[in-house]
Amino acid sequence: MSDTDLSSLTIAVLGGTGPQGRGLARRFAGAGLDVVLGSRDAARAAEAAHALASVGSLRGTTNAEAAAAGDIVLVVVPWDGHGELLTSLKDTLAGKVVVDCVNPLGFDKQGAYALPVEEGSATQQAAAILTDSRVVGAFHNVSAVLLEDPTVERIETDVLVLGDDREATDLVQALADAVPGMRGLYGGRLRNAHQVEALTANLISVNRRYKAHAGVRLTDV
Amino acid sequence: MSDTDLSSLTIAVLGGTGPQGRGLARRFAGAGLDVVLGSRDAARAAEAAHALASVGSLRGTTNAEAAAAGDIVLVVVPWDGHGELLTSLKDTLAGKVVVDCVNPLGFDKQGAYALPVEEGSATQQAAAILTDSRVVGAFHNVSAVLLEDPTVERIETDVLVLGDDREATDLVQALADAVPGMRGLYGGRLRNAHQVEALTANLISVNRRYKAHAGVRLTDV
Repeated sequence: MSDTDLSSLTIAVLGGTGPQGRGLARRFAGAGLDVVLGSRDAARAAEAAHALASVGSLRGTTNAEAAAAGDIVLVVVPWDGHGELLTSLKDTLAGKVVVDCVNPLGFDKQGAYALPVEEGSATQQAAAILTDSRVVGAFHNVSAVLLEDPTVERIETDVLVLGDDREATDLVQALADAVPGMRGLYGGRLRNAHQVEALTANLISVNRRYKAHAGVRLTDV
Repeated sequence: MSDTDLSSLTIAVLGGTGPQGRGLARRFAGAGLDVVLGSRDAARAAEAAHALASVGSLRGTTNAEAAAAGDIVLVVVPWDGHGELLTSLKDTLAGKVVVDCVNPLGFDKQGAYALPVEEGSATQQAAAILTDSRVVGAFHNVSAVLLEDPTVERIETDVLVLGDDREATDLVQALADAVPGMRGLYGGRLRNAHQVEALTANLISVNRRYKAHAGVRLTDV
């Protein structure tokens, strides 16, 4: 566990009205952190934040305003539109730690599968666009169902944190560590982000087969 | 845990003189299964089997003879030469359950990374070549160091089993279940094998950072 002090930082969640973004925001706010939800629609973000008011400190606004307010900015938007949003926020996100949580997946009758990404992964696409930001990949394999379930007190999972900037990956590991049950582990460089994103397709297969909300733990660490 | 009866089956391990193959062979033999080690060099395979004689029933021979003897045939050879070996054994392996365990990885100063594979993954390459076999992917993320360590009694890890043939994936899950501590889980279709193979690069990064022999467990399953 890390002793990094997150208490003075604001955590922004872009795409904070989807299940994954909303769920992560709930857990960070529940851990006592200051959270800003972003959405294309500021009113929907405000509504989502209001619905979580009992959990902790949350407010909702546009993705652009959330990006400006955040010290750590999580990107939890649909893959479709990922590059466009980040391009539009490039200047706003300069100098910040940006955590890409996006899984480029396709779905058909046989379930989920990894989509090809020209840059190699969503995280690498973010790094290619946000050349002035400190881009990290994390929180890819965490079940939105569990994150959003108020009866689930601990999220028993390891979060693989990917990046080439040690200070930034350390900070994001501390962010994961702040959530009860979660553990942030360094998981490799940006060039090894693809398989962590794509592994979510396997977890979806596992969930279908076993009626579960599977998460990952690493043993011997 | 499965109640599939493996006791009448022979388990062949091609590439059985490398650390991963030798380690898997040790664990299967230790679980009471009949194991044949294959190698390009029959004498080296016989030597490796002899060194493990106290563990259980093992013998060593050529890859071709091991492939012929096995009911379940594990492919644990280096990625370089994978396609060539399987092409040469196509007829021998017809009708058999073939378990591809190969991780196509490259290494440089920054560590390990996933190599591009034209067919998508080593497992899909095997399936493309062995059109008359029942190809499954499994045992990608298991530490050879732990497998080979005689003081390690339990291999505490989940084995993600990938395939499109339910009977074959069930059988390979049972094979994993036979090893104390190991659990075989269905992990998705062949098209989702790439990321499980490539995840080994991340585990290598984890091992370097944390001085560990990391393995994967899935939670909530």
